[in-house]
Amino acid sequence: MTEPVLHFSADEFAARIAKTREAMNERGVELIVVTDPSNMAWLTGYDGWSFYVHQAVLLALDGEPIWFGRGQDANGAIRTCFMAQENIIGYPDHYVQSVSRHPMDYLAGQIEHRGWSNKRIGVEMDNYWFTAAAYGALTKHLPNATFEDVTGLVNWQRAVKSRQELDYMRTAARLVERIHERIFAKAEPGLRKCDLVAEIYDAGLRYDPDLGVGGDYPAIVPLLPSGGDAAAPHLTWDDRPLRAGEGTFFEVAGVYRRYHCPLSRTLFLGPPPQHFRDAEKAVLEGIDAGLGKARAGQRCEDIANAFHAVLSKYGITKDNRTGYSIGLSYPPDWGERTMSLRTGDRTVLEENMTFHFMTGLWMDDWGFEITESIVIGRDAPECFAKVPRKLMVKD
Amino acid sequence: MTEPVLHFSADEFAARIAKTREAMNERGVELIVVTDPSNMAWLTGYDGWSFYVHQAVLLALDGEPIWFGRGQDANGAIRTCFMAQENIIGYPDHYVQSVSRHPMDYLAGQIEHRGWSNKRIGVEMDNYWFTAAAYGALTKHLPNATFEDVTGLVNWQRAVKSRQELDYMRTAARLVERIHERIFAKAEPGLRKCDLVAEIYDAGLRYDPDLGVGGDYPAIVPLLPSGGDAAAPHLTWDDRPLRAGEGTFFEVAGVYRRYHCPLSRTLFLGPPPQHFRDAEKAVLEGIDAGLGKARAGQRCEDIANAFHAVLSKYGITKDNRTGYSIGLSYPPDWGERTMSLRTGDRTVLEENMTFHFMTGLWMDDWGFEITESIVIGRDAPECFAKVPRKLMVKD
Repeated sequence: MTEPVLHFSADEFAARIAKTREAMNERGVELIVVTDPSNMAWLTGYDGWSFYVHQAVLLALDGEPIWFGRGQDANGAIRTCFMAQENIIGYPDHYVQSVSRHPMDYLAGQIEHRGWSNKRIGVEMDNYWFTAAAYGALTKHLPNATFEDVTGLVNWQRAVKSRQELDYMRTAARLVERIHERIFAKAEPGLRKCDLVAEIYDAGLRYDPDLGVGGDYPAIVPLLPSGGDAAAPHLTWDDRPLRAGEGTFFEVAGVYRRYHCPLSRTLFLGPPPQHFRDAEKAVLEGIDAGLGKARAGQRCEDIANAFHAVLSKYGITKDNRTGYSIGLSYPPDWGERTMSLRTGDRTVLEENMTFHFMTGLWMDDWGFEITESIVIGRDAPECFAKVPRKLMVKD
Repeated sequence: MTEPVLHFSADEFAARIAKTREAMNERGVELIVVTDPSNMAWLTGYDGWSFYVHQAVLLALDGEPIWFGRGQDANGAIRTCFMAQENIIGYPDHYVQSVSRHPMDYLAGQIEHRGWSNKRIGVEMDNYWFTAAAYGALTKHLPNATFEDVTGLVNWQRAVKSRQELDYMRTAARLVERIHERIFAKAEPGLRKCDLVAEIYDAGLRYDPDLGVGGDYPAIVPLLPSGGDAAAPHLTWDDRPLRAGEGTFFEVAGVYRRYHCPLSRTLFLGPPPQHFRDAEKAVLEGIDAGLGKARAGQRCEDIANAFHAVLSKYGITKDNRTGYSIGLSYPPDWGERTMSLRTGDRTVLEENMTFHFMTGLWMDDWGFEITESIVIGRDAPECFAKVPRKLMVKD
C-alpha cells in the first residue's frame, strides 16, 4: 500500500472541498468536472506533468473527489492525492491521442456508472485543457445531463490563501530573491542569455540549507528580453550575448510546492538613458500609490486606478492590466485567472488574497518591469520578496 | 521597422504553407484557425510564451497567414513571424481573462471583416488551447460558417522533416548527450533531486563553444522519479536526496530553436537487483528488434510489435504505446500528436520522419526507461544521440 505524500492537512483539503461545494450549490450544479491542473491539485493534492493528456477531478456534492486520468498516471495520483485508491480511475492507453475514441468517452461511462448521467454538471468551458472535443464527447455521451459553464468556480475558491499556502509563498519569495541576486551578480556585457538562464534555474532550484528547501519549476519560463525585444513581453531567450547600452527585464518566479512568487526587475548595462530613468520614477511612484490602496475593503480596480493616475501624470500610457491573483500554478500561467488589477474589476479585496502587482511597460522599442508580489492585509500589504525596488544598473 | 529573426528560409515557409493548403483542399476547408503553438510556429515562425492567452494563426487558401493574439504580444509576432505587419492582429487587453467578452468574439469580427464568414472553417477541436468556450464564441458569431474538425491537420504536415529541421534536431541531440553525461557525473547518494535538476538545466542550456549554440527550454520539465515513484512516469522532482539502492530514470530532452531530442536513461545507485538487469536485457533486445523495423516502407505498428514480441518473450507486459512522432514543440508535450508506435497505427514510415522510441516500463513499484530518438531512412534508422545504451550503474 503506497502512502501519498501530502503537503496540506486533511482538514485543509476538507475545508477546500466544503467551500467549493457551497459554490456548487449556489450555482445549482451537482457535479463538477475539473480539468485545470491547479484546481485539480488544490482539491486533491494531485501533482504531475500529465496535463498533456486528458484528465480531470470529479467532485460531486458528497463523497471524496475522484481523480480521472491516463492509466500510467494513476500511479502518480496514488502517490500525491489524499483519496482512497478506489477513487483513482485510470483510463486505458488506447484512448491517448486516438482519432477514433476520446478519453472523455470513457469518463462519460464512469459518470453514468456512478448514477450521475442526469445531473447538472459543471465544466470549465474556457479552461486550458478542456478542449472543444472534450466538451463534444461529454455532451454526446451524456444526453440527459445538463451542462453549465463553471470556468473559474474553483479558481475563485483559491483566492484567499491559508496560513500554509502563505508559508509556501513566502518560501518561494526567498527563492526569487536568490534569483535576482544571482542575476545582478552575473549579468554583464558578453554573457549569453542561455547562460544567464542556467544561472536563474540554478538559483531558483538548488537546495538552500538555511531555508531547508529546494525549488520547483515555474509555470512560465524565465523571460528576459533585451533592448528592442523588451517591447515584446513574452519572447523567450536565445543564445545571444547581453550588450552594453541595453536594458533587459527579468520576469521570473520562485516556486515552492507549486506556489509561486513572481517578481520582475529591469537591469541596464551602462548608464541608462533618460526614458529609463523617467519610467523608473513614474513606476516607483505608481507602485507606491497602488500599494497605498492595496488593503482589505478596497477593490481590485482601486490599485490599478491609483497606479494609472501616476503614470498619466508622467504622460505614460499602459493599456493593459496591472496585475492578477497568484498562488498554486501549473504551466502555462502563474496567474489564477480570477481577479485582475484593472479598471472595471470591482472585486473587494480580502485579507490573505495574493497578487502579482504587474506594472510592466512594453513600449514600441523598449520595455521596463519593476513589480511586487503582495499579500492583502488590513493595513499596508506585505511585499513577499525583499528585492531592492529600483532600476538595477551595472556600469 | 523591426526585422524579424527567422530560423528558416522563405522557401521553407512557402513549402509548408503549400503543403498545408493541399491538405485543406483535400478536406474541403477554406480557412483554418490554428491554435496549437507548435503549428503556429511551424507555419509562421511565431515564437513566444503567450499561449496562456487565446491566440491563433489564420490560414486561408491564398495570401499570407495572419497572426492573431493579445495586443502586447503582437510585438513578439512582429519580431518572429515572416509576414508583413498588416497581417499581425493584436486584440485589446480587456478581452484577456474577461467574463463578459472572449478573444474569439474579436477574431470572429476579423474573419467577417475579411469576407470569410460564410466559409468552411477548420478548427483544431481537440488541441490544447482551443477551449470549448473558444469554439462556442466562434460558432455563435459566425452563424453562416461551416465548422470542420481539423485537429492534427497541420501536425501531420510536420511529420517529414526538412534538412534544416533535422540539423536543429541533431544540435538538440548534442545537448541531450551533455545532459546525460552530466547526470552520470553528478548523481550520487545524498545529492538532492532539485540540485540534480539544476545540473540538468545547466547542461541543457549553456552555450557550447564547440557547437556554437546554447539550449532552449524543453516542452516537458525533466522527469527523474526514483525507487517506487518511478512507477509513476510523470511525477516531477522534489528536494529529497538520491538514495543508494534505488533506480532513477531520467527523461529529458535537448532543445534547440524549439526542436527536441528526448532521451531517457536509467541510473541505479549501487548494485542493481535482478529485475533491473532482466528489464535491461529485455528492453535492449526489444529496442534492437524495433530499430530493425524502423525504415521507410514499414509501418508504425511494426516497430511496436517487434518490441512487444521481445518483451512478451521475457514475460514483461507493457500496456502503453512505445513511442511517438517528435520535432518542434511547446509545452505541455514534446510529441507531435500524430503517429504513435503502437499496434493499430498503420501509418507507413517515410524517410526523415522522426520518433521518440519510448520503451519505458512503469511497474507497480519501480520504473525503467532506456529510449532512443530516431530518424527514419531507407535502411537502419539514425539514432540522434550517442549515449551509451545500457542501464547506468554507479556503485
